[in-house]
Amino acid sequence: MAKYFPVLAEAFGRLRTELAGRPIAIIGHARPDGDCIGSQVALARVLAAAGHDVICVNADPVPRRLTFLTQGLTFYRTDDVLARDERRAAIYVDCADHARAGERLKAHYAVPAACVDHHLSNGGFATLNLIDAGAAATCEILAGMFLDAGLPIDALTAQALYTGIVTDTGQFRFPATSHRCFLLAGELVERGASPAVVGYELYERETAGKLQLLQLFLASLRVECEGRVCIGRLPAGIFAETGTSGEDTEGMVDYARSIEGVDIGVLIEERPEGVVKASLRAKDAAYRMDRIAAAFQGGGHACAAGLSIKMDTKEFHTRLLDLLREQIRVVATATKET
Amino acid sequence: MAKYFPVLAEAFGRLRTELAGRPIAIIGHARPDGDCIGSQVALARVLAAAGHDVICVNADPVPRRLTFLTQGLTFYRTDDVLARDERRAAIYVDCADHARAGERLKAHYAVPAACVDHHLSNGGFATLNLIDAGAAATCEILAGMFLDAGLPIDALTAQALYTGIVTDTGQFRFPATSHRCFLLAGELVERGASPAVVGYELYERETAGKLQLLQLFLASLRVECEGRVCIGRLPAGIFAETGTSGEDTEGMVDYARSIEGVDIGVLIEERPEGVVKASLRAKDAAYRMDRIAAAFQGGGHACAAGLSIKMDTKEFHTRLLDLLREQIRVVATATKET
Repeated sequence: MAKYFPVLAEAFGRLRTELAGRPIAIIGHARPDGDCIGSQVALARVLAAAGHDVICVNADPVPRRLTFLTQGLTFYRTDDVLARDERRAAIYVDCADHARAGERLKAHYAVPAACVDHHLSNGGFATLNLIDAGAAATCEILAGMFLDAGLPIDALTAQALYTGIVTDTGQFRFPATSHRCFLLAGELVERGASPAVVGYELYERETAGKLQLLQLFLASLRVECEGRVCIGRLPAGIFAETGTSGEDTEGMVDYARSIEGVDIGVLIEERPEGVVKASLRAKDAAYRMDRIAAAFQGGGHACAAGLSIKMDTKEFHTRLLDLLREQIRVVATATKET
Repeated sequence: MAKYFPVLAEAFGRLRTELAGRPIAIIGHARPDGDCIGSQVALARVLAAAGHDVICVNADPVPRRLTFLTQGLTFYRTDDVLARDERRAAIYVDCADHARAGERLKAHYAVPAACVDHHLSNGGFATLNLIDAGAAATCEILAGMFLDAGLPIDALTAQALYTGIVTDTGQFRFPATSHRCFLLAGELVERGASPAVVGYELYERETAGKLQLLQLFLASLRVECEGRVCIGRLPAGIFAETGTSGEDTEGMVDYARSIEGVDIGVLIEERPEGVVKASLRAKDAAYRMDRIAAAFQGGGHACAAGLSIKMDTKEFHTRLLDLLREQIRVVATATKET
């Protein structure tokens, strides 16, 4: 039987040998998503089954809609770990760089034992780096490595891995969704992952407030740059008004991008103390959302990036539109030349 | 290699033998969806490749968002077929009964050569019936039968089959989403189906009007029956106001159902001439949406049903709530007893 990740098999074997018997901290990124929590849960369960003392650590809490995966595990916050001065072998998952989990965790776990990740920009900041930028999700890598190594995958582990693949492929529709994604999803369903339960937990447990927030966001949509950009705004105070939180904006920017003819969707949030937060989504990687975000000290992928900056909203709006207009011009010129 | 649909392989072989050389009409249901059009396209392309003269027939037009699948094929409407008095061997796809394509097509193609379907209620109205109610989509059955028979599947055929699986599984999250669905989806991706292109065509080509319609629908949501039912309304004239059509309400009722604690979501549309149209969606089959719809001369599945009736909107609303309240009581009593 061919391996799913033949290049990583040797390193994963070495990781298991070198960490044998040691207590482990599995660290995810700030504002954790389904692939982050799914990866942490799955790796924690597999390592715990192999006899390790394992904890999971994040700068931010596990989002409400992902708590169905965390039963039986302890998720620590940064303060808990620093207060207890927990010393463990650290494995970073789904983090493109060491700082993605926060500077304080970076300082505490200064030499990570390993990282498992699928981000193109990951340069390999750990002792052992298990990276495949061709994978759609870190959970895809973990699922493949577990199967390649013949490790048992129980139903909740399968559910966690499946959740990561579902969320990071946008329900199997982002460009990185491959034959391998489907093969692995099938294997996980065979082992007890339930597409219906995952779908229910992720998408059918909304609050009335979240739908109200979505409604207000949709009402705010404005098309700019001759129909190529669509921007929606969530003004200051809207979370309090609707009984929601920043977590509830997840996926909202996709509506802005979904309009025919629109190439770039933007969500702008006015946060307290003059902070502007923005999510940028492009239909095509040529628009380089990561670069646009970087102009405001943000980052991300070519099609999906984000930023958070102290700036007047109007000024931000103007500067963002200038950059987007210029980028659209650059792409149009490049397209004409080829 | 084990077959995907071992029980159907013999009948599918017989169908191909018996129809050899004959002109064929592939008939789908009224208000065709992704699984219907996907099935028609895929079967038409495979039969055309085998030398058949093939047309596709529907009572209603191919929805705008599915036209990316129909290149190179002719989709006829009922009138076209009746006017030309087209006589062909008829294969019905994705139709639970003979009348689902309309009474006029039923009369014209009185003895269908075959039907391919996944609906539980399909009693087998054709000469050869290729039915598997365990399949999530008719496209799943077709994909499996083509592969089982070793028939070539080109990229556009794969794309059509993949589209049917995506839409009828609700993007791989309805309960019928099985290991087999994922295996077949993977095989189709191997043969040229593009999850990104299908996702773009289905979900990223919205009109601004449709988002406005969604916004107005969300603003209309009201929770009833102690939070167990959520109803949204689209008043008369809203399609004209937003530049949309009835086709654009697809998927909207799912927002009503998606709220935590809500068991049943309802979309009520005021149509011209005093007609009320409603879509009913339950989180659990016990609520029997098909029976509620039947009380208003509608029908469907236990979790998803619909109706269209000439009735005063207020009266409809009251009668519907009475029936839903009673059904919620019945389910609660049954749950207590078990």
